[in-house]
Amino acid sequence: MSEVQNVVELKLAMDTVWLTAAAALVFFMQAGFALLESGMSRAKNSVNVIMKNYTDMCFGSIAFWFLGYGLMFGTNHTGWLGMDSFMLTDAEPMDFSLLFFQTMFAATAATIVSGAMAERTRYPAYIVASIVVMGLIYPVYGSWVWGSAVSGEGWLAALGFIDFAGSTVVHSIGGWCALAGAIVLGPRLGRYGPGGELRKIAGHSLPLLALGGFILWLGWFGFNGGSTLEADASIGPIVLNTHLAAAAGVVGAILTMMVFRQPLLVTHTVNGSIGGLVAITAGCATMEPAFALATGLIAGVIVVGGTGFLNFIRVDDVVGAVPVHGFCGVWGTLAAGIFYVSNPFSSTIVMVQFLGVMAAFLWAFPLALLTFWLISRTIGLRSDSVAEQRGLDFSEHYESGYPDFHTIQMHAGTEAPRGGRDRA
Amino acid sequence: MSEVQNVVELKLAMDTVWLTAAAALVFFMQAGFALLESGMSRAKNSVNVIMKNYTDMCFGSIAFWFLGYGLMFGTNHTGWLGMDSFMLTDAEPMDFSLLFFQTMFAATAATIVSGAMAERTRYPAYIVASIVVMGLIYPVYGSWVWGSAVSGEGWLAALGFIDFAGSTVVHSIGGWCALAGAIVLGPRLGRYGPGGELRKIAGHSLPLLALGGFILWLGWFGFNGGSTLEADASIGPIVLNTHLAAAAGVVGAILTMMVFRQPLLVTHTVNGSIGGLVAITAGCATMEPAFALATGLIAGVIVVGGTGFLNFIRVDDVVGAVPVHGFCGVWGTLAAGIFYVSNPFSSTIVMVQFLGVMAAFLWAFPLALLTFWLISRTIGLRSDSVAEQRGLDFSEHYESGYPDFHTIQMHAGTEAPRGGRDRA
Amino acid sequence: MSEVQNVVELKLAMDTVWLTAAAALVFFMQAGFALLESGMSRAKNSVNVIMKNYTDMCFGSIAFWFLGYGLMFGTNHTGWLGMDSFMLTDAEPMDFSLLFFQTMFAATAATIVSGAMAERTRYPAYIVASIVVMGLIYPVYGSWVWGSAVSGEGWLAALGFIDFAGSTVVHSIGGWCALAGAIVLGPRLGRYGPGGELRKIAGHSLPLLALGGFILWLGWFGFNGGSTLEADASIGPIVLNTHLAAAAGVVGAILTMMVFRQPLLVTHTVNGSIGGLVAITAGCATMEPAFALATGLIAGVIVVGGTGFLNFIRVDDVVGAVPVHGFCGVWGTLAAGIFYVSNPFSSTIVMVQFLGVMAAFLWAFPLALLTFWLISRTIGLRSDSVAEQRGLDFSEHYESGYPDFHTIQMHAGTEAPRGGRDRA
Repeated sequence: MSEVQNVVELKLAMDTVWLTAAAALVFFMQAGFALLESGMSRAKNSVNVIMKNYTDMCFGSIAFWFLGYGLMFGTNHTGWLGMDSFMLTDAEPMDFSLLFFQTMFAATAATIVSGAMAERTRYPAYIVASIVVMGLIYPVYGSWVWGSAVSGEGWLAALGFIDFAGSTVVHSIGGWCALAGAIVLGPRLGRYGPGGELRKIAGHSLPLLALGGFILWLGWFGFNGGSTLEADASIGPIVLNTHLAAAAGVVGAILTMMVFRQPLLVTHTVNGSIGGLVAITAGCATMEPAFALATGLIAGVIVVGGTGFLNFIRVDDVVGAVPVHGFCGVWGTLAAGIFYVSNPFSSTIVMVQFLGVMAAFLWAFPLALLTFWLISRTIGLRSDSVAEQRGLDFSEHYESGYPDFHTIQMHAGTEAPRGGRDRA
Repeated sequence: MSEVQNVVELKLAMDTVWLTAAAALVFFMQAGFALLESGMSRAKNSVNVIMKNYTDMCFGSIAFWFLGYGLMFGTNHTGWLGMDSFMLTDAEPMDFSLLFFQTMFAATAATIVSGAMAERTRYPAYIVASIVVMGLIYPVYGSWVWGSAVSGEGWLAALGFIDFAGSTVVHSIGGWCALAGAIVLGPRLGRYGPGGELRKIAGHSLPLLALGGFILWLGWFGFNGGSTLEADASIGPIVLNTHLAAAAGVVGAILTMMVFRQPLLVTHTVNGSIGGLVAITAGCATMEPAFALATGLIAGVIVVGGTGFLNFIRVDDVVGAVPVHGFCGVWGTLAAGIFYVSNPFSSTIVMVQFLGVMAAFLWAFPLALLTFWLISRTIGLRSDSVAEQRGLDFSEHYESGYPDFHTIQMHAGTEAPRGGRDRA
Repeated sequence: MSEVQNVVELKLAMDTVWLTAAAALVFFMQAGFALLESGMSRAKNSVNVIMKNYTDMCFGSIAFWFLGYGLMFGTNHTGWLGMDSFMLTDAEPMDFSLLFFQTMFAATAATIVSGAMAERTRYPAYIVASIVVMGLIYPVYGSWVWGSAVSGEGWLAALGFIDFAGSTVVHSIGGWCALAGAIVLGPRLGRYGPGGELRKIAGHSLPLLALGGFILWLGWFGFNGGSTLEADASIGPIVLNTHLAAAAGVVGAILTMMVFRQPLLVTHTVNGSIGGLVAITAGCATMEPAFALATGLIAGVIVVGGTGFLNFIRVDDVVGAVPVHGFCGVWGTLAAGIFYVSNPFSSTIVMVQFLGVMAAFLWAFPLALLTFWLISRTIGLRSDSVAEQRGLDFSEHYESGYPDFHTIQMHAGTEAPRGGRDRA
């Protein structure tokens, strides 16, 4: 194919191949989020949910190239912000590989938000918010932890904060923005009854939801494995831990449902795996497999419990983005300290982890609240109630997701039919 | 990215990258199986089928880490069983890469079973069975053939048995377990009429079925290509053979349907490709492309004929798992001997291949029969008939796969509407 | 895993790994096309569309191995045609890797055609046409541009024609064949009213359409990144440009819809991304990121405008294959000249690009017209009108894509319900 290159060039080519393959897998997570979120929404909003996932990444990728990458990975003199590398042009090939990989990470943080806000958020408002997340909220926090990857060093990195692939940097940040959005929006019409009681609103396609889960799981091998930023034998234990934690997350969610004598919902099951993946993301490179299993198992419990907690405080998070990405991100970041390979159960390490977790919340949540509040005061955040009842597919896109099928206009609070059950 | 490493480290890093990418593709086959099997089932069981596929891998992956991997790849003094490497911890990174890759293989063997048993198997019973397959049935046979990959040597390997990526080790083992399960369960309600005549029960989403087929085909490039266990130029002919055999499998299935003047069913077509892939799995590394085409073509014929044969003996295999994985696994293993590159049509080689095929059946089928019989006598294997008629989504998970759509409660034996056809 | 090899072998192994991974991604684009095209068709044709996508690749891959690869990459003494390497057997492993990768490219060119001709083309007629495209039309043009990759040199390559990964070689060729097919077929029944006015025929599953778009976008990282034909650091800027152009294509399509005060259709949005990807394919290796953004942005405009233009001249292209692959292929090939990195805006380069674009049209369009005309005069190209109204799933395959669901027999010209809209 070409002249033989020397070993330096070989390594560079190999790093490029791995970063590209891993970034492609992380890109594919966008499809996973789109299907998972669309599948958990009603048919009348299926197109709108997917449009948001498809296009937030488009506007956001350009915003990240324009601004975000420089804020996050530019030369970081203060530890609080990068200051160059905006609109990267005319750089080394490897710099472009890094930008490509990091763009996919930024897109992940942004798209987490859409699920919590599904079925009632205006399309243009959502797009503006996702540009703010990818261009500003995510990269600034990211510079505190990962800025050192290129030059300078973030202040959290300097303290020894461990977040290998972004339980906090990507997932908690996304989760807190999602929480802010869901709070500013308020719940969907009829989600809670007059006495505040929860009414079930079933997602329209659980097979698509599950396919979304499989795709996210697949993508995570690139997410965590690619965070080595180079081809290296250490990828092996990283992806093994990733897989075991996801499997254990499912087991944890299923055991929790069994203990509370709930039916074994596929929604909780899939979210259990994603919760396990979120949790192992911080510590996958610095944990023994048995601890990865424990990290995932507890994440599965948190997913089921956290979903119940959010409904208890009447925050309507359509897909469970806050428990899965926010809460499990916190747990995973702490677990990365608790189970740190060469020095497990060190309170010093755990304190730094806790500090990083708090910093993420204090940075992202108020700023996201402000962003959504400003949007709601200007261009308008929430669809009007006629549009919400009719479905956003019609009101925003004048399309139907499934025009050839008789669909049931789901009224909020419509329950699945009751009847006998056949469980062991 | 890092200091330049020496050539040994480079090779190790490259092997890791390839094993990881290949394992990710094999992982994705789980989504392929889930969609293919759910698509071939009725809407009322669509969630249950996917839950089984999503979670068998979770429980099974942990079982394989705990027990199976050691049985299969641990030090093998006798040739019949590995005896260490259980709960692998604190090992070389490459060992974790291997475990990661092999876990995905074990999950494949287990998940094959679910399709044959769809629409009438209780969820907890199925999960117990899949743990037995991944933790015991699959790895013990595997140790006879592939145990030598790490240390010691399996007795079939010692005889020169050729099964490069597992036509027998993975697919026939899975197929025979599926056959045992379908026999112990018995057919779905109404699958065969009072006179034993076959009644068509159509799958609820053929587009999902076809997507499952595409994903399986994609994953197979990792399945066969990754079985080199290292980055090597020999991957090229392996994946080419894989692709050509799959294509020829489709051509074989279509020609068979044309010869018998049947309509060109997408179900048989997709199964034809999977049959071709199963068949080439044993010999993909030791066959010329023209022979790969022949192997696939015959597999396509076997898929259509084998599906008819199973119905003739009234074994209700919902997705055709037994003909596709069992029968085509046998054919492919024999073909690997018949078309062996340096010595084709040698009766000595074919005899050894036949011995390995027989050993797989004699090990897996009775043991799986026993497992399913024990389950049926204890926790119960088959759903009660009210649950089966209502659908397992409701009875086991209290969910509906498609709550926003008017679905037709398919009565067993409901035929597609008859009428004129427009075929050349 | 193996003895350490020398640097030459290492490079070869690494090239193989990258080519294999990239080819697997390109293969997966077949699933993307199948879903996108099936999602844009009515439910009654959903199986037929997918069958065509699933099987054109099968017959065509064998035809490409048998004939096409040799025509395209065989020794090319005249610059107009390769003359050996047919039925490749007993070659170097790397040759098989190349054949594997190039087979996926040929399959892409062929499958583009199916979308434009959906919902009214007989299955066997389509298969014959796709064998001609993969075995003859595509590889002969390809030999003019890429023949030099192995030995000899194509006449367009000799002139300096730039088409790195095939905006013209793959996509325009496919687009012109699609245009010829749509013209020979004529529009679907009722697509245009008595006065020639356009009637909307909505696709049956927009979530599947969007998933198809995500998969195509993912596959394109292999399509463009793999066209290096080796592991190399230059893959980084190539895939970054690919991603930015796709994102900009979406932005371009959305801005166009906003300017013309149209609803924000997901169909145009997804096609905008594919148009951006098609356009950047020629110049992705020789363009700065800012120019990649411009290339994609304009492609998004072309997609929306070109779709309107085709309807204006009453060519019924069901999925927009002609504007997306044909028109954006032309634009992208010119853009590769206009934005050529070391010498942008050179009229000499642009002239050669224009020549290559014209040559593609003059070769592919008349030959495809002739092929489709011959098919229509012999075995018959178009389904009879009873079959078309009933749906090709029933008439050709005797299957229903969604037998458990009440579907609406869409009459041509059925509009989505009208009503108030809620856009900013």
